[in-house]
Amino acid sequence: MKNLSEILSLDSNAKIKQIKKGEFLQREGANSSQAFFVKKGLLRSYTIDNKGKEHIFMFATEGWMIGDIESHEFNQPAKLFIDCIEDSEIITFDRSRFEKMDISNDELNKNNSMLFRRLAVLQRRVIMLMSSTAKERYEFFLETYPELPNRVPQRMIASYLGITPEALSKIRGEIAKSK
Amino acid sequence: MKNLSEILSLDSNAKIKQIKKGEFLQREGANSSQAFFVKKGLLRSYTIDNKGKEHIFMFATEGWMIGDIESHEFNQPAKLFIDCIEDSEIITFDRSRFEKMDISNDELNKNNSMLFRRLAVLQRRVIMLMSSTAKERYEFFLETYPELPNRVPQRMIASYLGITPEALSKIRGEIAKSK
Repeated sequence: MKNLSEILSLDSNAKIKQIKKGEFLQREGANSSQAFFVKKGLLRSYTIDNKGKEHIFMFATEGWMIGDIESHEFNQPAKLFIDCIEDSEIITFDRSRFEKMDISNDELNKNNSMLFRRLAVLQRRVIMLMSSTAKERYEFFLETYPELPNRVPQRMIASYLGITPEALSKIRGEIAKSK
Repeated sequence: MKNLSEILSLDSNAKIKQIKKGEFLQREGANSSQAFFVKKGLLRSYTIDNKGKEHIFMFATEGWMIGDIESHEFNQPAKLFIDCIEDSEIITFDRSRFEKMDISNDELNKNNSMLFRRLAVLQRRVIMLMSSTAKERYEFFLETYPELPNRVPQRMIASYLGITPEALSKIRGEIAKSK
């Protein structure tokens, strides 16, 4: 069975790209049909609210896929900015082509499993945003992305958690003390 | 191509059940391998936080599927309560059996599309919980579930939105005035 990056390379329109830290792959309002598979590096997607505040929706490290499923599904201009936190190597591909590709039942099943996994993580994220303390959310962040605390600025982690950098710093202090 | 309820009936273990308003299909801590397809009626899933407060994760009306994907994916006891808001007719089935069923490529593709659609809705839900006003969240609730305001008590809608019933009542007043 092919792995995901092999499946993607079957599409003649899929392209491997090197991108630099700070580079944008998608801006709010743009066409949102592309998705990005991270071979190496680190991307993030985020939104900016009416008051100009950034809210990070997700990070994508090696082996993750990132895109703007909502805008694609509802045929709307992009809701999310997607940019690059570290120099990265990615595969860009077109979601609508992916849906039409001739891939086997096994491969579709594998893709299905990935989607279930992603749904599971999002279910937890919604429930935690509604009902958990910031400390619990930070602990879940560490489970989901164990390698990120050393690769991502504190202010971005705070933005992902929906708290201030000061609140995050306090939580990290508490966790360090309790160990 | 078969529709989802036809696909489910292929599984000899899938069962059609009549359930009464108030009946529980799943409690927190239970085994979470079952999912439920709503043929008629209305279910909801929710969590209860440390302080005893209810937070509604989702509603499921006719044609929706509801389950506890997170707990199933991570092999954990159920995180969610699932109960019945109206007398309902449902198909119960086992997620792990569904994954092994012999269904065609077309049907898998269709299932894939449903998963993408659900991901899109959850993406929007996360972004709105982080960055939108309660009024914007209520308007999105109306788009997602246009028929629910007349079928669900106000306090449940408020719980889904993460606001108090009083705040919801104020928002409804504002919307009514602006029309």
